[in-house]
Amino acid sequence: MDYETLGNVVLLAIVTLISVVQNGFFAHKLEHESKTHNGWSFQRTGTLAFERVYTANQNCVDAYPTFLVTLWSAGLLCSQVPAAFAGLMYLVVRQKYFVGYLGERTQRTVNRKPKTEEHSRLKRSRVLAAGSASQTLLGPGVTEGARQWRSTRGYIFGKRIILFLFLMSLAGILNYFLILLFGSDFENYMKTIANTISPLLLIP
Amino acid sequence: MDYETLGNVVLLAIVTLISVVQNGFFAHKLEHESKTHNGWSFQRTGTLAFERVYTANQNCVDAYPTFLVTLWSAGLLCSQVPAAFAGLMYLVVRQKYFVGYLGERTQRTVNRKPKTEEHSRLKRSRVLAAGSASQTLLGPGVTEGARQWRSTRGYIFGKRIILFLFLMSLAGILNYFLILLFGSDFENYMKTIANTISPLLLIP
Amino acid sequence: MDYETLGNVVLLAIVTLISVVQNGFFAHKLEHESKTHNGWSFQRTGTLAFERVYTANQNCVDAYPTFLVTLWSAGLLCSQVPAAFAGLMYLVVRQKYFVGYLGERTQRTVNRKPKTEEHSRLKRSRVLAAGSASQTLLGPGVTEGARQWRSTRGYIFGKRIILFLFLMSLAGILNYFLILLFGSDFENYMKTIANTISPLLLIP
Repeated sequence: MDYETLGNVVLLAIVTLISVVQNGFFAHKLEHESKTHNGWSFQRTGTLAFERVYTANQNCVDAYPTFLVTLWSAGLLCSQVPAAFAGLMYLVVRQKYFVGYLGERTQRTVNRKPKTEEHSRLKRSRVLAAGSASQTLLGPGVTEGARQWRSTRGYIFGKRIILFLFLMSLAGILNYFLILLFGSDFENYMKTIANTISPLLLIP
Repeated sequence: MDYETLGNVVLLAIVTLISVVQNGFFAHKLEHESKTHNGWSFQRTGTLAFERVYTANQNCVDAYPTFLVTLWSAGLLCSQVPAAFAGLMYLVVRQKYFVGYLGERTQRTVNRKPKTEEHSRLKRSRVLAAGSASQTLLGPGVTEGARQWRSTRGYIFGKRIILFLFLMSLAGILNYFLILLFGSDFENYMKTIANTISPLLLIP
Repeated sequence: MDYETLGNVVLLAIVTLISVVQNGFFAHKLEHESKTHNGWSFQRTGTLAFERVYTANQNCVDAYPTFLVTLWSAGLLCSQVPAAFAGLMYLVVRQKYFVGYLGERTQRTVNRKPKTEEHSRLKRSRVLAAGSASQTLLGPGVTEGARQWRSTRGYIFGKRIILFLFLMSLAGILNYFLILLFGSDFENYMKTIANTISPLLLIP
């Protein structure tokens, strides 16, 4: 690619490469857990600990193509900087989500007896309450992650960020048809709005 | 992106954004089912109903990167309009497939006893027969979905559409080498052929 | 796309289309296995044989978006030819990995009794030893596949190739910032280095 084209996508490319590193990290964790707990078996089932890492990884993997598509659509059709920023936020949320799952796992494996299930829930509530209390200490990213993880119970996370990227893409496509129909280009307004809204993603 | 480049991909981008909305819908259904039936557990297993939604979602997710790749290859290497049309058809098939799975699920959970299994199969055959009968009422999309769902039993669907997109990509690459070797450009013939064939995807 | 742009991505597009064919092959194998062993059930669980094919397919599917992203990043940001070559190598490794899983499966289903587990392991070691012995006969690809399959036990394979593609992408991005900051373009050096290193991927 020539220099100017590259300048239009370099931030998106950096975010994408960070996400690749993160995927590698998740896969490494999964492999480690599998080696530790499952011995020589190739199965997808195993100890509760392995099940959890597997599920966390699976949820991240399932959402990955959707994330990539919205990231690049938003970046190319609308504006690069806010899209790359939102993408970075998503990766932070994903990291917190995965680590939250692992933490939950560790706690569960300690109280693995069914009769301590109720106790474990109480304990978890306390952990989450502590998470809310530590919000001011650790910044919004942590709380975002914890909140997503709690509210979605593991199937969807980072909904708001994906929605933001999706709306940016939609704005880019609408702008194309406005140019086509009325000859008026709202690209600058659009970029200004996207830049203004993107910091709001930091609010937990 | 500048205006001309955007014009070459805008239909593909629209189809892609619709697929993102659909992914969100599938994930929402899965989350809802998980909340309703599994209580607080994070597991991938659960009631039969949850298993079905999970499997349906997994099959859609697994095929998603392949679909995106063939869609954009066909659109960029060959011709945009037929590729976007085929992509839209694929999304319709996918929707019918997912909804078919959910319907199958509901029916199964009603007759959950093993001894009514045989009865359930008979009932299902009748449902499928009814589906064939309602073909003229509901249009080809529905039958396509039902047929795919029945014939593949959940692992591959929309084969014909993916094949069409794949052949379009292949034609685009062959055309590149024809230009390289003989200096003759068959792009217009290729586009005409793709445009002519694409309505055939509507035939159930 | 115009002719020059197409020339910059045609090799990447070919590798991508081959990977699509391979995905179809994997999905076909999974469907076949499901039909043979599971009868009419839609479940993700089943016989050990089905579980294995499912797991092998799942591992390939999970890594697929990451592979595509690094392939195209490396090809667009750095150099096309070594990236396409590495991508092709990855596809070979993936094929060997999948076939290795199937072979393992067949062998396991023969000795399915738990008491012959230990015996099965010994047999497997012998198979792997035979694999090493046949290295000179079958070329490096086979050994690479067997080695990856053995060492990672099914969760990550082709690490080295993904790493190579990732480093190429990283070099491309670093080069962009070097041009931005110092005005010196190292693109030619970079391409030469990538071309020189890529044959090393053939070493098992």
